[in-house]
Amino acid sequence: MRFLTAGESHGPGLTTIIEGVPAHLTLSQTDINDELKRRQGGYGRGRRMKIEKDLVEIMSGVRHGKTTGAPIALTVTNDDFVHWAKVMGIDALHAEDEKQVRNKTISRPRPGHADLNGAIKYNHRDMRNVLERSSARETTMRVAAGSVAKKLLKSLDITVGVHVLNIGGVEAEADYENVHDLIERAEASDVRCVDSAAGEKMKVAIDEAKKNGDSIGGIVQVVVEGVPIGLGSHVHYDRKLDGKLAGAVMSINAFKGVEVGIGFEAANLPGSQVHDEIAWDEEQGYHRKSNRLGGFEGGMTNGMPLKINGVMKPIPTLYKPLQSVDIESKEAFSASIERSDSCAVPAAAVVCENVIAFELADAIVDMFGHDRFDRIQEAIAHHRAEARNF
Amino acid sequence: MRFLTAGESHGPGLTTIIEGVPAHLTLSQTDINDELKRRQGGYGRGRRMKIEKDLVEIMSGVRHGKTTGAPIALTVTNDDFVHWAKVMGIDALHAEDEKQVRNKTISRPRPGHADLNGAIKYNHRDMRNVLERSSARETTMRVAAGSVAKKLLKSLDITVGVHVLNIGGVEAEADYENVHDLIERAEASDVRCVDSAAGEKMKVAIDEAKKNGDSIGGIVQVVVEGVPIGLGSHVHYDRKLDGKLAGAVMSINAFKGVEVGIGFEAANLPGSQVHDEIAWDEEQGYHRKSNRLGGFEGGMTNGMPLKINGVMKPIPTLYKPLQSVDIESKEAFSASIERSDSCAVPAAAVVCENVIAFELADAIVDMFGHDRFDRIQEAIAHHRAEARNF
Amino acid sequence: MRFLTAGESHGPGLTTIIEGVPAHLTLSQTDINDELKRRQGGYGRGRRMKIEKDLVEIMSGVRHGKTTGAPIALTVTNDDFVHWAKVMGIDALHAEDEKQVRNKTISRPRPGHADLNGAIKYNHRDMRNVLERSSARETTMRVAAGSVAKKLLKSLDITVGVHVLNIGGVEAEADYENVHDLIERAEASDVRCVDSAAGEKMKVAIDEAKKNGDSIGGIVQVVVEGVPIGLGSHVHYDRKLDGKLAGAVMSINAFKGVEVGIGFEAANLPGSQVHDEIAWDEEQGYHRKSNRLGGFEGGMTNGMPLKINGVMKPIPTLYKPLQSVDIESKEAFSASIERSDSCAVPAAAVVCENVIAFELADAIVDMFGHDRFDRIQEAIAHHRAEARNF
Amino acid sequence: MRFLTAGESHGPGLTTIIEGVPAHLTLSQTDINDELKRRQGGYGRGRRMKIEKDLVEIMSGVRHGKTTGAPIALTVTNDDFVHWAKVMGIDALHAEDEKQVRNKTISRPRPGHADLNGAIKYNHRDMRNVLERSSARETTMRVAAGSVAKKLLKSLDITVGVHVLNIGGVEAEADYENVHDLIERAEASDVRCVDSAAGEKMKVAIDEAKKNGDSIGGIVQVVVEGVPIGLGSHVHYDRKLDGKLAGAVMSINAFKGVEVGIGFEAANLPGSQVHDEIAWDEEQGYHRKSNRLGGFEGGMTNGMPLKINGVMKPIPTLYKPLQSVDIESKEAFSASIERSDSCAVPAAAVVCENVIAFELADAIVDMFGHDRFDRIQEAIAHHRAEARNF
Repeated sequence: MRFLTAGESHGPGLTTIIEGVPAHLTLSQTDINDELKRRQGGYGRGRRMKIEKDLVEIMSGVRHGKTTGAPIALTVTNDDFVHWAKVMGIDALHAEDEKQVRNKTISRPRPGHADLNGAIKYNHRDMRNVLERSSARETTMRVAAGSVAKKLLKSLDITVGVHVLNIGGVEAEADYENVHDLIERAEASDVRCVDSAAGEKMKVAIDEAKKNGDSIGGIVQVVVEGVPIGLGSHVHYDRKLDGKLAGAVMSINAFKGVEVGIGFEAANLPGSQVHDEIAWDEEQGYHRKSNRLGGFEGGMTNGMPLKINGVMKPIPTLYKPLQSVDIESKEAFSASIERSDSCAVPAAAVVCENVIAFELADAIVDMFGHDRFDRIQEAIAHHRAEARNF
Repeated sequence: MRFLTAGESHGPGLTTIIEGVPAHLTLSQTDINDELKRRQGGYGRGRRMKIEKDLVEIMSGVRHGKTTGAPIALTVTNDDFVHWAKVMGIDALHAEDEKQVRNKTISRPRPGHADLNGAIKYNHRDMRNVLERSSARETTMRVAAGSVAKKLLKSLDITVGVHVLNIGGVEAEADYENVHDLIERAEASDVRCVDSAAGEKMKVAIDEAKKNGDSIGGIVQVVVEGVPIGLGSHVHYDRKLDGKLAGAVMSINAFKGVEVGIGFEAANLPGSQVHDEIAWDEEQGYHRKSNRLGGFEGGMTNGMPLKINGVMKPIPTLYKPLQSVDIESKEAFSASIERSDSCAVPAAAVVCENVIAFELADAIVDMFGHDRFDRIQEAIAHHRAEARNF
Repeated sequence: MRFLTAGESHGPGLTTIIEGVPAHLTLSQTDINDELKRRQGGYGRGRRMKIEKDLVEIMSGVRHGKTTGAPIALTVTNDDFVHWAKVMGIDALHAEDEKQVRNKTISRPRPGHADLNGAIKYNHRDMRNVLERSSARETTMRVAAGSVAKKLLKSLDITVGVHVLNIGGVEAEADYENVHDLIERAEASDVRCVDSAAGEKMKVAIDEAKKNGDSIGGIVQVVVEGVPIGLGSHVHYDRKLDGKLAGAVMSINAFKGVEVGIGFEAANLPGSQVHDEIAWDEEQGYHRKSNRLGGFEGGMTNGMPLKINGVMKPIPTLYKPLQSVDIESKEAFSASIERSDSCAVPAAAVVCENVIAFELADAIVDMFGHDRFDRIQEAIAHHRAEARNF
Repeated sequence: MRFLTAGESHGPGLTTIIEGVPAHLTLSQTDINDELKRRQGGYGRGRRMKIEKDLVEIMSGVRHGKTTGAPIALTVTNDDFVHWAKVMGIDALHAEDEKQVRNKTISRPRPGHADLNGAIKYNHRDMRNVLERSSARETTMRVAAGSVAKKLLKSLDITVGVHVLNIGGVEAEADYENVHDLIERAEASDVRCVDSAAGEKMKVAIDEAKKNGDSIGGIVQVVVEGVPIGLGSHVHYDRKLDGKLAGAVMSINAFKGVEVGIGFEAANLPGSQVHDEIAWDEEQGYHRKSNRLGGFEGGMTNGMPLKINGVMKPIPTLYKPLQSVDIESKEAFSASIERSDSCAVPAAAVVCENVIAFELADAIVDMFGHDRFDRIQEAIAHHRAEARNF
């Protein structure tokens, strides 16, 4: 499975093509739109999330509610484009529109954004040419692609959930029975937090940040249960699944770190308190007595729940301005204010969940076949039974 | 640039082929062997590091001390193979050797290793078929490939260094003037630590772990200076350089987390204390007043020093045994003792540095051309001048 | 540069995303639509070409007539979809529509199509799930992607043309002064043939085939002038440009062979009559006294015009039926008649031209940089000057 | 499955790493060496083939006669290197060796070789830096990689053979009962020709060419029987198997064309004489009444024998000189004579067979799984049964 995304924040729309999805997977627009909606929610979001209501259209690869094996194209129309038709127009500018467009030219790079680096790399003096693409709006299509993957995983009894562990320094207890409980509780929370007391404090922190014209980030944790043993591989470094997941998470806008299991805490503990003892019984087959390694050993899944944490920095678009430099005048200024969220962690959690879902689904089809979903189901059932008594 | 590695821990030898190295780069076996030697040092290493002295042989792609543009094959002979010729033999077993080999059959998976997952995935009842490849010995060739990349970077005045921030909970001050100072001080330390007081405590911690039959991990930090602006790209998620680096670091044996800049600390700070203000002056061109984002914005380098942290868990081969299960009898046992290091963090730092060097060099040739080193030099000089006055 | 395509013949529409196009290339919808129109013309096309008039919409990656470096999404709406909304519907079928859809179920594979193989591979008992995607309609998006590449090449003074050498056994003289003359003459011909006498005979052959309820194929030749020396590489087999072009051409629907230069004729001639002697003078620099190798030596371009031939088999959808088997009854039948063209060679020539253009543009950005078109222009000018006096 | 090759014609040796070979495939050095030996035989080969006797050493990925799933490294030592240790030395040149090396400097490009294009691309004034890599000696490792693939195919009852259809204009009858008969008869022939009368005439043509100081090429045909239905895919152009095979064949040194089935002849025939009628009976399942399309429809295999032709131009290293230009003096000269073969078609047939075997094996593991050979066997048996009664 592979996918490409396209689209600018204020352009005509967003597009993705997902190639390599097995045939015979049940899939509807609702499956995808439900995920997109989750991405748009969350306490602390700004005005735009209320303006745009992302609805995907399936353009190909699905017929009568089932995938056919052909590439799946998805589009989301930017309703807002009508107001940007000149500024973001595809066609060469007419003389009479130049002034309007010039007013929207951006020569002032925002700290913490792609603006300046992208401008220098691609030689764009109007940094709008960078920021329209580097915008977090692109994650809409990563979620769309991930939602197809999530449907595949779900149909194989692999359940992916996400919750928020930390917002602006407020830490939550990761207290839940299993991933289903986690999902129920996290999705019921405005801040996607299973710990309701902490959740309330997080909202206070978000309000506080907003009041200060500031923004805050946080830590999200993706949990996956029902994962078969042996996804990924130890034989070549670029086939290690934890490596692929780390790459996917770090490539999400504003993410600055990723860890599996206890992650950075492993630096502080002796090996005897880090590794998970191995046990076997007839019912469960092989399992671990603890899960400090987060479900990965040797670049492969070990059958325990996956636990992957990602950290999101505070959103860089600030009401409280930072110093920057105008590239035309080379003069310092206080960074411009764009409408913005004061905290996007609950939404970013959904993005994180979906990019991980995509990599997992890819690892599944890599191991169990990518042509036919019916054969994948058989193969995975066979593998699970065999692994139990290996 | 791409590379494949091959080789088992006790097999005949290790091999890598690196494809896509530009022509006209000065390169010698010494350049590579110096890196391999660094990987073998460090306080807390076990016996094997003293047995094997890795020396690479360049088999192709280099002539009269210069790369030609053709693929570079590197081999390291395992001197130890003579003692393993039967057990690790390529040819079908002779009846008379079966007993000797059977004695070396491994049916007892070690916690924290690829053993059990790999056995189930590939259907190996002798887990030696897994662990010989999943062994950290493979990182020899990742260092070898990285050393070629480091030479390329060095020849472009891009300097890569690494130091140890934490071993077993002992934290160091990251106090150094610049990357050259960092390198000098880290390389002078047995534990690759720039903070000599902390370094002494780390050695005590290692001795302690060893005495307890335990092992400890730690955190390493790679620092890169002289990086041109705009490596990587914001235009597509899988071209973001921080994502690629995260994937590379997480795929190193025993690494469980990776972060750039302040990383996970970003969850606890307001945006105004996370983002780096932008400044410009004629001498330095564009720069940041701080470097909390570790040199990356929008998936691209911003010209500030790169700072990437990786965490290594304690080595899982323990003198202090953990419970596991024999796959033949399904009976519990205390995990077998293999000769081992009690702490491999100073060596793993070298691996981390080199895998990052490879990704950076790849990003360089991606942006500035991969055919001829002379043209890369020109292009990068031109780009640096242009970026300064952009 | 890479691209994915999606879309079914009678589905809602066709989509492509092209990733890696350099910034600052002038590009308009007209550039693309002009190529699409060429694909729809040609003597011998059936009714559908008159129904559908393909018009592309640029959804992203282009602003004010210039590429930005971001992925370019292109869509073509299938106007015909209104008549197929039930049969090709995305959503699960309503009971009341089942009969209508069942009437369009295809259980009879056509010889020479993907129908049966695809049905077995993907387990589709309704072979419409195969043929909607395997249809030549998909080539619309390959042409769309190629047209962006052609614009890039044109802007670098690299000219791509195509003409028809053979239709149904009628052979043309490849008589033209240069590629510009070739283009002018071929595009003025109904059958895209530079030899007007042969062109007339080709039309007669097409009429004859139609009258007989049969179809005919032919040979097309792509010619490229202005190609810099050294595209591709000899260093690794999968970087040889002639290999890549051959793969691209053979992957066009109905193409069964590909050759460069004199191609298969090289089997019948001694080496002294096959290889092209090398000459040099100040004006032209290095050149060949003949061009029997079609512009390729050692997997690289040598500066001479590229000549690549592809053979298209007759269209397999026949009015004159062939025997096949119904997969439900396993009974023999005479293959069903679908509306069709009796000869699609003039249109396929356009497809061939465009897939080659894409590979060439990719080789260009691979060698001269893929970020900025302005830098590519400089680099290629520098290279041409240097090569002349090498 | 993927592989990289490395090595120069007169360097220390040749290397390949093959990654992604399933575990549990029986494999020995003899399997590989037998193929290498076939590549070195054939009527019309020059002196070098008698000097070098290529023997491969398996360095990893195989244990006790079975693959383990880990990367397989193969090396071939160039015995001849002792005579080239200075000229092709890895280390920087010592002053005292400079004269010896300078005498071997090549400033005179040979027509039909990579020499001049590679020199300009990589800026090598000593074209030895090009020709040592562009040499057909590299195909040794493509055969080595292919031989592993051939073993996999053979173990799945897929049989690959090759024979020579044309040498220097002498055409053979492709008269054989099945691929086993083909192999027996072709391998018994000095020119790998199943038509013994034509084979004698080919030898005469080779002798003649040699006498004239000239060289001749020819056409080879690879035939594969036992191929399951549905390898490749129609869903995306770059997954079409005929396209991949064409790319692989065209990338062999000196190959100028490739066709499947009747190939270019399809231009001359009406559709009713090109397409293969479909039939079904209980014993054979689905099959075609003829095989003019060479086993491919819609980019997938259809279960009929694969037939792929490749054309090799005459070897460009000529005793009968061609005009060229010295790059230092820019003066014309008659191209230098290197020891050479007058006809390498019988050997090139082996290369062609092996590159196709690799692509086929890759398509097999892509469709049936790449981890475990035992599971591939089961999956393919299941698929064959299901396809028969689909």
